[in-house]
Formats: sequence, C-alpha cells, structure tokens
Amino acid sequence: MSKLLAPSETAKWLKERDDFLVLTHRRPDGDTLGCAGALVQGLREQGKSAYILYNPEITPRYSKCVKHYIAPEDYQPGCIISVDTATTGLFTKNAIKYADSVSLCIDHHISNSFYAENTCLNADRASCGEIVFDILMAMSGSVSSAAAERLYIALSTDTGCFSFGNTTANTLYVASVLVESGAPNKELNKKLFRTKTRGRIRMECALASELEFYFEDKVAIVSITKNMLETTGANEDDMDDVAALPGSIKGVCVGIVIREMSSTSDCKVSVRTRVPYDAQEICAHFGGGGHKLAAGYTMKKTVDDVKYELLGVLEPIFTE
Amino acid sequence: MSKLLAPSETAKWLKERDDFLVLTHRRPDGDTLGCAGALVQGLREQGKSAYILYNPEITPRYSKCVKHYIAPEDYQPGCIISVDTATTGLFTKNAIKYADSVSLCIDHHISNSFYAENTCLNADRASCGEIVFDILMAMSGSVSSAAAERLYIALSTDTGCFSFGNTTANTLYVASVLVESGAPNKELNKKLFRTKTRGRIRMECALASELEFYFEDKVAIVSITKNMLETTGANEDDMDDVAALPGSIKGVCVGIVIREMSSTSDCKVSVRTRVPYDAQEICAHFGGGGHKLAAGYTMKKTVDDVKYELLGVLEPIFTE
Repeated sequence: MSKLLAPSETAKWLKERDDFLVLTHRRPDGDTLGCAGALVQGLREQGKSAYILYNPEITPRYSKCVKHYIAPEDYQPGCIISVDTATTGLFTKNAIKYADSVSLCIDHHISNSFYAENTCLNADRASCGEIVFDILMAMSGSVSSAAAERLYIALSTDTGCFSFGNTTANTLYVASVLVESGAPNKELNKKLFRTKTRGRIRMECALASELEFYFEDKVAIVSITKNMLETTGANEDDMDDVAALPGSIKGVCVGIVIREMSSTSDCKVSVRTRVPYDAQEICAHFGGGGHKLAAGYTMKKTVDDVKYELLGVLEPIFTE
Repeated sequence: MSKLLAPSETAKWLKERDDFLVLTHRRPDGDTLGCAGALVQGLREQGKSAYILYNPEITPRYSKCVKHYIAPEDYQPGCIISVDTATTGLFTKNAIKYADSVSLCIDHHISNSFYAENTCLNADRASCGEIVFDILMAMSGSVSSAAAERLYIALSTDTGCFSFGNTTANTLYVASVLVESGAPNKELNKKLFRTKTRGRIRMECALASELEFYFEDKVAIVSITKNMLETTGANEDDMDDVAALPGSIKGVCVGIVIREMSSTSDCKVSVRTRVPYDAQEICAHFGGGGHKLAAGYTMKKTVDDVKYELLGVLEPIFTE
C-alpha cells in the first residue's frame, strides 16, 4: 500500500534523503521533463546529489529541460522518484528495472496506480508542475530562476499556454510566481506556442483541404495518409495535437482524425467532441476508450472502411 | 493639464460621483469592451447609474461584454469616462462630441495624450483590464463573477491567451483572481482562442500556399489580394492578427503581409521582425512607423511594385 504524502510532507521526506534518480514517462512531454529538471535543480540547491535517468524518446523541443542533469552510466541512486507517471507501464525501457523500487511518485493523474512506496498526488492540478512547485516552496520558500523556467514549461505545455479547459486559478497563480521568479515566459511562449515549422503548416493545409463534413456540418472527418506525411515533410513533433484540428472548427461538434500508421497496417482514430456528444461512447463501439470529450481506438482496416463504419455509428446520433 | 490618479485614488473619485457614461475606442477589441463592461458592472454594484456609449463598430465576437449596458438615446451623463483609448482620434464618430469633456481616462498606452481631466495610466500593464481590476478591488475589495468574466476577456485577448511578449507576472496573477472569482475561462478560451471559422482556415491555407521566401528563408512575404478574400469567404473577424502568420514560421526573421485594400487602391503593408531586425526602420523607408518588432505602412501602388521596392530595402540588410 502506497503512503500518501502532502507536498509539505514530501519536502520533509526529500530533505531527509539523498542521491536521487528521477524517472520521466514514455513519449516525454513538457510536464514530465520540466518537473524532472526543476526537481533535480531544487534538490541540488539543497546540497543534494540528484540526476535524471536518460529518456531515450526525448525530442529536441524539450532537451533543454534536462540538460546538465542526466545521470552518468555508473550513478548509484539511493532513492528513485518518478514524476508525472501514472503507472509503471509508462516507464521507458531503461527504467523498467526500477518498477518495483520507486520510493516516491509525484503525479496529477487520477488514474495513478499507486505503484510507489510514497505518492504525492493531486488530481485537481492541470500539471504535475504545480505540485512540484508546492514541494519546492515547502522545501526552501522560493524557486530559483532555473527551476522556475522548467516549471513554466511544465505548466504551459500541459495547458496549451493556459488555454485548455484544465487551466485553473491555481495554474495561473503558480505561473505568475514563476514569471516573477525569473521564468522567461516571453521567449518560452514564442518558441513553444507561437512558432510553426513549414512542415506543420503544410500538414495543417493538407488536412484542411481534405476535410469532409457530414450531418449538417456538425461532424468533420479528416484522414492522414502515409503519403501526406511524406509530401508535407512533417515529422512527429509537427503532428502534436493534430487530433484537435477538426474539432476546433466553428460549428463542428464531433471532430475525427483517422491516421494511417506508417509502421503497421493499423488506422488510429481520434475523436473529439463538444457537450453533449460523447467521444467515449462513440469509440466504445470499436473497442476504444478515453474521456467524454476525447477518446480513440485502433483498427486493422483501410481508411475508407474505418470511415464508413464510423459514419454508421454516427448516423443514428445525428438523425434522430 | 491632466491630473494623474492611482487606482486607489480613482476608486475614491468614482465613489464620489454618479451617472457615468463609458466610451470605448474605434475598431473595438476585447480590452476596451471588457473594461467598459466590467467598469459599468462594478459601478452598478456600488448603486451608481452607469452605461456604455454604443460603439457602431462592435463585432459579434465581443457583443456579450456590453450587453445590458448600452446607454439609452436620452441618457444624460454626469461624468464621461474613456477606457483603453490613448487619444481622442480613436473616438468613435458618436463620441467625438465628448472629446473635450472626458472626466477620466483609464489606459495602459504609453502614447496616451492626456486629453482627459484625470488619467489613471500604467503603461507597464499588458491590458487596460489589469488597471480596471485594481480600481474595482480598491472600490469594493472583490470582483463579482460578471465583472470577472469581462475583465478576463480584456486580459486574455490583449495577451493572446497569455502567450504574447507583453504578458507579465501581474497579468497572470490578476487572471488567477478572476478565475477564482468566477470568470468561466474554460468556455471563454474555447470560444476566443480554440475555435476557427472555415473562412479563417481557408484564408490561412490560401496564405500558406502563396508564401514566398527570400534571403535563405529568413524573409517570408505573402500578399492578400481582394480576390483571396472573396474566394475564401473570410470576413474582417477572420483577418484578426493575420499579419503575424509569416513571422511565426520557424526560421523566419522578417515576416511581411501585403494586403490589397478593398475600398481603395492602397496596399497596406505589415512587417513583423525578430531581434535584431528592426521593423520600424524598414517601414520608415516608405514613410511608415510603429514599434521595433511590428510596424507598417500604406502605399498607393500595386502588390508587385510594393514587393519589389521592399525587397530593394531588405537586400542590403541580408547580403552585407
């Protein structure tokens, strides 16, 4: 049974220990990497030895978060900490050996499986960074500019620069303290939210030109074929949040992206809905799952067959 | 000579008066309309009579800000207040008659001409909404959810949902209090920042396909012809911030939009730059002006001639 710790108890717990190794999750995002960087930075400021386990899936977008903090091969950790990682199934390959010996997990996912000896969890937080902020504040009463920069990356990327529905008063309050503490929000926002690659722009336009509307334009469907990836030159970083595009069109209630996967013969389907339409219910017809407003599934069928079957499920919803 | 008032002095000044009429600026944005709505709401909560002068240029996007607050034709104001309006040159036609009798101007523009009897100015604020927030807090110690919603619109639209370079720790702090006070940030963000019309999407793609790159892709130029407006079906709301698009492409240092105006034979040129390139300097060659990173000018020439002359000015900058 995992012991639940409040941020202040977590700070005390950390102060009593040393030689930390911090783990981040697979397909690492700004939240897990920002949290890991800020935590290691904060622990080092307390005179501790602290490192991040190398994440083999890190992309250039977030590499600065963890620079200077990666553990050397021969590092002997005394204490394993995971951040923003709900289950050990999300561990990177090189972290699996630590799955049974995680001393502390800091997380904000309601789906956390309590695999760690101690867990500091707050599922009301938009980002894990807000919890790491509380811990660092409890530990030293302030955050350094280096930690603030990394936490700002955590908060802003998990909330689409404070525009997603998960953004709370606490998110904005913590962000204000981070900027006050020296987080260069101007430069970070420009890089993270206000710059697009030409590949991304070409991909967005390719998608826009392929959009199909159904049921009085309330449903928008687009297919991403392998061929589109090649002709637009978009890479995996460019595909970030592409599933949200059809659903962001004015008047559309159900936005669907069907993506032909390059490595397999699978099609990956992402469904985004607006209230009262239930994405989870739609995807359940095909064995998928997720949340009420965002769900998905995978099928070993052609794009056209996937679309045909989907329209069959949508028809009674929109023609009752 | 205008008398400068701090927000707390402004609150006291307002408490001592009644029968307010609030003016907003031409081509009204979320800041001027959100401020006007929040101020009238706050004054009414103090038992005052307060209205907004009808703004003939208001678009549907912000109409909710001022609903229920528009002054009846026969309203006899005792006290004229302008918000977010730097000079009387920005007054709407129906407000010009008040140009010499504005009792109070609340503003955040450093270019304010101090045309009012009293001025509450803070040029360090990203939005005028932050100043109105300070005034309402000084007046009653809190903001109602109705005022908070309107101020949230003011703050978020003037900062691109907290992503522009003008966003400060204060902006984020005030936003957190507004959300805490009941501003429905989730719904507002969805409507204001996460929804695009089909006309806007078609316009963005038309622009993307017409992009021209020069000087090792450091300069991106695009022309918006009258014909493009017709074929994409984009309206004026859809053209919002379109000038930022070429400059938001990765690697581009100077982004230029040349827009053929529909009513005249003019071309309107918008130049956006990254440090160290100086937009103001480029535009000064053609009699234009603005800021270091965003400037513009107007010319009575064809799109092709405008582009040719611009490239002539850019060449020595990029080939030295």
